[in-house]
Order: sequence, then structure tokens, then C-alpha cells
Amino acid sequence: MQNFQKPSGMRIHKYVPFQDQIVTALPDRTWPDKVITKAPRWCAVDLRDGNQALIEPMSPERKHKMFDLLVRMGFKEIEVGFPSASQTDFDFVRQLIEQDRIPDDVTIQVLTQAREHLIERTYEAIQGSRQAIVHLYNSTSILQRRVVFGEDQDGILDIATSGARLCKKYEEELAGDTKITYEYSPESFTGTELEYAVRVANAVANEFGVTPERPMILNLPATVEMATPNVYADSIEWVHRNIANRDSIIISLHPHNDRGTGVAAAELGYMAGADRIEGCLFGNGERTGNVDLVTLGMNMFSQGIDPELDFSDMDEIRRTAEYCNQLRVPERSPYGGDLVFTAFSGSHQDAIKKGFEHMERDAAAAGKTVDEIPWAVPYLPVDPKDIGRSYEAVIRVNSQSGKGGVAYLLKNDHQLDLPRRAQMEFSGVVQRRADTEGGEISGAQLWTIFKDEYLPSEDADKKWGKFQLGGVRTDTGENGEFELTVKFFVDGEERIRTASGNGPISAFVNILTAEGIDIRVLDYSEHALSEGGTAQAAAYIEAAVGERVLWGIGIDANTGTASLNAVISAVNRALRESTPAA
Amino acid sequence: MQNFQKPSGMRIHKYVPFQDQIVTALPDRTWPDKVITKAPRWCAVDLRDGNQALIEPMSPERKHKMFDLLVRMGFKEIEVGFPSASQTDFDFVRQLIEQDRIPDDVTIQVLTQAREHLIERTYEAIQGSRQAIVHLYNSTSILQRRVVFGEDQDGILDIATSGARLCKKYEEELAGDTKITYEYSPESFTGTELEYAVRVANAVANEFGVTPERPMILNLPATVEMATPNVYADSIEWVHRNIANRDSIIISLHPHNDRGTGVAAAELGYMAGADRIEGCLFGNGERTGNVDLVTLGMNMFSQGIDPELDFSDMDEIRRTAEYCNQLRVPERSPYGGDLVFTAFSGSHQDAIKKGFEHMERDAAAAGKTVDEIPWAVPYLPVDPKDIGRSYEAVIRVNSQSGKGGVAYLLKNDHQLDLPRRAQMEFSGVVQRRADTEGGEISGAQLWTIFKDEYLPSEDADKKWGKFQLGGVRTDTGENGEFELTVKFFVDGEERIRTASGNGPISAFVNILTAEGIDIRVLDYSEHALSEGGTAQAAAYIEAAVGERVLWGIGIDANTGTASLNAVISAVNRALRESTPAA
Repeated sequence: MQNFQKPSGMRIHKYVPFQDQIVTALPDRTWPDKVITKAPRWCAVDLRDGNQALIEPMSPERKHKMFDLLVRMGFKEIEVGFPSASQTDFDFVRQLIEQDRIPDDVTIQVLTQAREHLIERTYEAIQGSRQAIVHLYNSTSILQRRVVFGEDQDGILDIATSGARLCKKYEEELAGDTKITYEYSPESFTGTELEYAVRVANAVANEFGVTPERPMILNLPATVEMATPNVYADSIEWVHRNIANRDSIIISLHPHNDRGTGVAAAELGYMAGADRIEGCLFGNGERTGNVDLVTLGMNMFSQGIDPELDFSDMDEIRRTAEYCNQLRVPERSPYGGDLVFTAFSGSHQDAIKKGFEHMERDAAAAGKTVDEIPWAVPYLPVDPKDIGRSYEAVIRVNSQSGKGGVAYLLKNDHQLDLPRRAQMEFSGVVQRRADTEGGEISGAQLWTIFKDEYLPSEDADKKWGKFQLGGVRTDTGENGEFELTVKFFVDGEERIRTASGNGPISAFVNILTAEGIDIRVLDYSEHALSEGGTAQAAAYIEAAVGERVLWGIGIDANTGTASLNAVISAVNRALRESTPAA
Repeated sequence: MQNFQKPSGMRIHKYVPFQDQIVTALPDRTWPDKVITKAPRWCAVDLRDGNQALIEPMSPERKHKMFDLLVRMGFKEIEVGFPSASQTDFDFVRQLIEQDRIPDDVTIQVLTQAREHLIERTYEAIQGSRQAIVHLYNSTSILQRRVVFGEDQDGILDIATSGARLCKKYEEELAGDTKITYEYSPESFTGTELEYAVRVANAVANEFGVTPERPMILNLPATVEMATPNVYADSIEWVHRNIANRDSIIISLHPHNDRGTGVAAAELGYMAGADRIEGCLFGNGERTGNVDLVTLGMNMFSQGIDPELDFSDMDEIRRTAEYCNQLRVPERSPYGGDLVFTAFSGSHQDAIKKGFEHMERDAAAAGKTVDEIPWAVPYLPVDPKDIGRSYEAVIRVNSQSGKGGVAYLLKNDHQLDLPRRAQMEFSGVVQRRADTEGGEISGAQLWTIFKDEYLPSEDADKKWGKFQLGGVRTDTGENGEFELTVKFFVDGEERIRTASGNGPISAFVNILTAEGIDIRVLDYSEHALSEGGTAQAAAYIEAAVGERVLWGIGIDANTGTASLNAVISAVNRALRESTPAA
């Protein structure tokens, strides 16, 4: 089969492939054989990297709402600002400390550049906190060394180590007994030669005098994603293997999402030996965003790994993030978006319905609840209930949907468990309607279509069809012989007829046959709609009426009456369809 | 440093890790050493997988708009619908064919389940087309075999091969000379044992009688993402190595995005030996979406690889997709989102500005245009110009921004190239304003702040400051002695004074000193604002006025006048700040 694709004419000659910029050869990499088995140390940077990238940065009130949410979710390390760069950030950090809003087991983190007046101001900001992470950074990439700093490798290394020394100096001058942990980021790490990044990191760790008891967090940002995520993983494994005093270093990842692979970079990088991940809820952050911590945590959850973050009220997390960031979580954002538990496709809907049914059967067979057996529903990687979302939203019906979605909604909203062929018939009815009218069909609209098609009109003055049921009397003799007396209306004219049969349906068919209706019952089923004394029953009849094979459905508190209504439903539908509209 | 993270209490026991469901051992994998060097065959499924997942499926008019866009972009294989499942889809396929809307080098693709009446209807739909891909699928996963079909491996294999046979049958009955290519999808491939997936694929290929001249497309969907993307890549490499008649098979990827790693899965899977990728623009599609073809294509572009798709008018692509899908492209969607070329952070803005300047210098030094040298601007993985977006949007200013953003906007919008310390001073002014008022500061607001701070009021009736310049006369004697006569106003009172000096600035300082102003000029620079005869000039003066060191800025067609205005600007600012507000 010929490939007709043509050159695009785009200006590709301007771009240098990553592998021609940075070498990350690691042929004996081990990460592709690893599997994630436990949560990393998390650090939420929503209040810093996230906030600085907002069209409308958070007000103090919004910042507190975000901080409280992060604490409730279980974050223990939270970057709360860049206090030396913004008065707003400075004031917020002071409020957190002075108003004693930081739980004992939560450590705030503050970012600073490696410049004396900024470092000094940073220590002013954290004064009086129980503990804090001072996050020192400077850019180390080949590009930034050349165009931003005009410095060689030694010059940039000197910025980093001088910064570390200044941190130690101001730490010593700090009043009170704040416990300081250091974090160092060779910013733009993905554009930095690995040997050089490790050289700088070792020098900084040395300045800080790291020990296993007082380790340094070495944060390795994909400040800009520059290659496929396996390359980031290789670089992390390279650092993991080559950094000095590995037991005194906490390797931290800080992926951005320029190539849409931030989550993958974090996962593969974590497999490659990292200990910690920095990111934002729903991937807020500069440009394409920081890595999405909701997706990362929920991906672990879906594998049976405790994320050590509580996502059980996803809607509240999302609502708060949207309020604070004033940015909407997109419809297709994993786990949190509006449409991610929605299956529009008919075959998907059908499979989901069967999956739910199987789980109920399997649980019942095992004497357990469905929450005690493994989750196994096609097209739903997790149970929406586990994050506080409901099954209601799982399925919608439009012209692309088949019987599964229709069946699901009838079962879920109205306890009607249509037989398979009845599902197919009704989904055809729905689809013709959807094709004609376009758009999605809501549960309420679906129910209206269903009633119009199968059930007597609720409006007493409105004629349902040719036949309408009145009273019913049944007599079962000593020897089991059955007799049915029915009052019914034919085009509004009352008739009372009696017939015998082996049950009400066959007797009623005999009555209708005597009225000139050609009807044979092919299939029949019924079920109760709800438990208890006031139960309604639904009856389903597949019948051949003249040339047509079709279903009738009846609902009544009395099973017998429901089945007679089902017969009338089938007959009326057949006659309606064979009569030209008035 | 202690890790305080705690168990979340979430219901993790319900979930079975992927590696306990499906084995994909491939210790000798080769894909991590591969690099992408050319575009895959693309297939856009926006009109099928994308459309079926919309709240409001596309109207025929919207479908044609999407089809035409995909054709314009360079797609040569386009899945146009599931014609046997929807009358709307059927009618659309007929319109494309009957109205001759399909270019000669474009092949339409139609999806069908492996059931006779659907296959028959599918061939009705494509009748009269020059060429078509008939895409047959059935679900093969362990879970779907059990809960949806209740069939064993042989039973499911039989569905596939029977479907293939029926396709051949209806192909033979097809009138005209439509050239058919077959595509087979073992749907839910990611939940299928690899050996079994290959067994089914081989059997189907055998039914189709594949040859290198008439290959089958074997599409391997991550119908649901179930593991990290390296696992998908392993599975693709496994199939690539183990499928029979590899030269008669086109391996196609169809990733979804449930774990937020669809792009990574496509890239790593492509490195693992695939030939083709199916997806949607901006990642539309069921639940979390199909893989995003814009990101995939642009990722290649950013590495100097021709995507063979034209993204040079990204805004138009986005506008059309938003119109057709009636879903917004999120702000942080890679390459297409509103905010992805926006740097709010001060240090980012500063680096970007320096990057642009370096490129201009490097290009000038090489005697080339900036479009002829490698793109090298920090924080911008591609040149926004290359996809029809402008630099204007790159930088905005808010309370988180430093001098870089401010400087960029003044340079870009007003040709003002502030000296570094003047940038710092003015960014402080802007930051105090942003901190007070909150929110983003537009270019227009920034300019208003700048004029308020440094320039004479444009409103003649409004007083600018204590001093205002009137006329200026300069006399330079034969021996270079310089004399300046100035008319100026002090609190509106006109004065005319003459002084000498080594130039206009020193002479004017002498005049002001005589007026009781304590001023020393510390630094001075000037530049033309634009080329040609009507050029304006900007002058920058750093001065110590009393105790304060601050900048004054003047703009005038005459360089001398501009510099005197800069002196007055500094003096007025100093006096204004030392005087309590009225």
C-alpha cells in the first residue's frame, strides 16, 4: 500500500535534534525492567511554579484555600512561594508561619536564586517556622550558560556553590530553631551535560555538608521537555548511579510537559531511581504546565499502589483547583475531567454494562460485596465511586450509541432490565430519534421516548393505541384450568371478554385472536422493579403480530396485569406502525 | 529528612497491578536505544473515534469542515466513520464519494465490527470510492472475552477470521474497481496476552492473503491505557519481532490517554518498530481521548524531523477543531494552547529576551537571517512564528514577573531598550503596582505605567512635576566650549538660564545646581528608536538626586533634548517621591 505523504514545507532546518545537543548513552539501563511499587515523596508546587504561571495569580485568600487543600490531600512538602521575588509571596509565607497554619508534619518549601540579597530575604521569610526546605537554583544548561549568563562551566558552578555558602551563612544567623533542609536544582537540567550537572550537584552537596541524616534534595528539572521520556529516564538513572554520597541525596524530579509527556517522564524517571516528584494538581504550571500530580497519583492507585494522597473526593479537589487557579480542568483530563468516565460508543457501553453485571454475580458467588473483589469493568480503568464520582455519568446516549448505553440508563434510572433483543429494538428507536434530532439524548429524554413507544399514555384523555386495558379477573380452577375475564377498550369502545388458556397471556391471546388480531407470543420475561411490598413488576413480550416481530412492555404492581399490558403494548405498536400517520 | 507521608485509606485492594494480568517480558528490548528520525504513516480518526466521543456529534457540515482540514494538513489516510452503526456516518461517507470530495491520493477508512450485516452495510457505504481501508475489529482482551463475549480464545479467534472471510466475500461482490486495503484491530490489545494477539493477527492476515504488495494494517490499540508507556513499547516490539510475514504487515498504533501517557506510548511504540499512528487533533476521543496528533507531529518538528503534516497555521487548525468538536483546546495543550508560548516568570522572560538578542547577533555575525540559524531561545522549544503564532504573546507581566518581561514588552512594543539597572528599577515600579492591584498587566497598561513614571504628561494642562522643559539653544564655540541656554518652568514659572559645560547634560546639571537641586549624573546612554529621517531618540540618565539614586528617561526627535528631558525626569521623580502625596 503506497504511502502518499509529502514533505510539509515547514522550517525543520532550524532545529537541532536532542541527541546532537546532549549525550545520554546508557546502554545498560535497568529502568525498563522496573515496576513502580510505592509512592514517591511528593512535593506540590502549585503555590509557586503553578501560581507564577496564572493569568491571574492567586489572591492571599485563594492561596490559603490551595494550601489547605494540599494539606488535606496528604502532601507533606509544599512549595509555598518565591518570597524574595514577590512581596505577595513573602507576605503569604509570613501569614502561614505567624498564624500557625502549617501542621507539624508539613514542611514548607521556598525557592530562591543564588544571589545574596534574595537569599537573605528568603531567610527573613521563613523565620519562626518549625522546618523549611530552602530550594536554591541556578540554570546550568549549555544554552543558558551561553546566552543568559555568558559564563563558562566554572563560572556557573561558582554561582551555585557561592549560593550554597550564602545559604549556610544566613542559616547560622537565623533566630529560633527552624530545621532547614536544602534542595538544589540545576535548572534546565535537561539541557545540561550529565557529567557537568553531577559535578555541580556534588560541589553544592559538599558545601551543604550532606550526610544520610541530613541529606540534600537534588531536584532535576525537565524545565523544558527536550526529548522522548525514555531519554529523561536514562539521564535520571545516570545521575542515580554517578552522584557522590547517594545515601545523602534525595533525587527529585520536576518534569514539565512541553512535549505532552510529563507524566511519562515522571514515571520512567521514578523507575530509574528517583525518590521524589514535584508537580501541580491537574498539571498547572508554566506554558504547558508542570507534571500532573492527580494523574501520577491515580495511575498508582489504579495499580493497587497507595498514592499516599487522598483522591477520594475528586470533584472537591477539582473545584478547589479551578477556583484557585481560575483555569478550568479540561474535559479529558485523566481521572478529573468531565468526560473521562463517559462512554458514548455503543459497544463500550454494552461492555461496561456486562462488566458491572459480572462483578455483581462474581461478588454474590463469592459471598462478598463488589467492593471486595477485583475491579474488572471494560473501558473503566478505575471505579468512579472510589474517587467520589458516580456511575450516572458513565454513559450517555447519542446517535453513535448502541443498545448498551440505552440499556444501562433504563436499568440504572428505572430498574428496567430489558431482554437483549428488546434492548436492540429500543436502541434502534432511540438512534432514529438521535439521527433525526442530532445531539446527545439525556436520561430524561430517553425515558420520554421509552414511554411514548411502549407504555400507556399517562394523560387519561390521550389515546394510547387501538387497545387499552380495563379490569382483569382471573379464575384458576381446582385442576389448574385457568380462565381470564378482561374488560378492554377497542378504539375507546368497551368490551368484556372471557377465555381460557394455560395462563393469563395465552388466554388473552385467545381473546385478541377472536378480535381478529394475528398474534403469536415468542418470548416472555418479567422481573420485579424494586424490593418490598409495594413492588412494581415489568413484563416483556416478544410477539409476532401479523408480519412484524416486536416487543411489548408492561409495568404494573400486579405481575399478571403487567404481562397483559405488555401484550397490548406489542399489538398497539404493530398496529400503529402499519397505519399511516393521520 | 523524615518522610511523613501516610496511607491514604483509598480502596487500593480492588486493583490488580498490570504485571499480574499480562506478561510482557522483553529483557533484550532494543527500542530504548532508538531515536525517531522520520514521520510515521498518519491516520486521523477525528471523524470516527473522535466524533463518537463528542457531547454533540458533528453535523454533516462540521464533518466536511474537519475532513477538508485534515486533507489540507496532509493526512492521506482518514477514518471517516462507522457507517454500519450510524445512518449519519453512512450518509457522510456516501456524500464524500458521490460529491467527489476525496482527493486521489487520500484513502478513506471505515470501521466495522466482525458481523455480517454490519460488514455488508460497510461495503454499501464505500461503493464507488477509488480506494478504501476496511477496518475490521473485535475485542480480544482477557476481560472482554470473559465478561462481554463469554467465549474462549478459539471462539474469539473465530469471530475475527469469520469477519475477515465475510469482508473478502463482500469485496468480491463490490461493483466498480474500488481498491481495498484491510486493517485489523485486536481491540483492547493492551489487555490481551501477546501470544494470543499475534495468533489472531496471523490468522486474520492469512484469511486476507497478505503479501508485501497488498499488506494488512495491524492496528494495536491501547484501547485503555493499562501500564506505563514502556510496557506498551515492549508489547509493540514483541509483536514486531514475532508476527508472521512482517513484510506484509503495517504495524499501526492507536493509543488512548487514560494514564496521561498517550503521546509517550505512541513515541516509544513507534521507536519499537511500528509504522503508523492513529489519533486525533488535540487528543479528542473517548474518555481521556485518543493520542494527540498535533503534539506528536510538532514533537518531531522540534527535532528537525519533517512531520509530513502542515502545522504552519496552528491557530486555524485549532479554530477548526474547536468548531467541529465543540470542545475547547485547553490553555496548556502543547503547541496549540493559549498559554504555551507565554512566560510569566521573570527569570524565564529575561532568558527569552537574551535568547532573542543572541540569535539576532549570531545571525548578523554569520551574515544570515535568524530563520537560517539553529533555533536557540530558552523556554521556547520551537519558534512560535513557525506555526503562525506571534512573539507578542510570549511574555506577559504580573506580580511574579521580573525585569525581563517588562524589558521585553518595552523593547518589542516601543523600541525602548532600557539599560539593565533601569529595567530593574522599572520592574520594581510595575511589581508594586501588580502586587497592589493584582492580576496580569497588559502591554497597554505597562506603557501607561511607564509614561506616568518617566515621561511628561501628554495632557498640556496637566502638570508633570516640578520642572518642565521649554526651549533649548546650544552654542558650541570654535574651541569646543559648549554653552546651553534653556527655557524651563519651575512649578509653572518660566525661567531662562544659560550655563556652560562639556556637553548639554553637564551644562544643564550646572543650571539645576544653581536652582538648588543636588544632582550628580552616574550613567548615561541613548539610542535611536527607529530608522530613517524621522527617528526619535531615547535617553537614559542614572542620577543621584539628593539621597536617592534613580533613573530618568527622555524621548525626543532631538537627542540633546531627549537627554535634558531624561535629567528632568530623574529630578521630578526624586522630588515627587520625597514629597508626601497631597
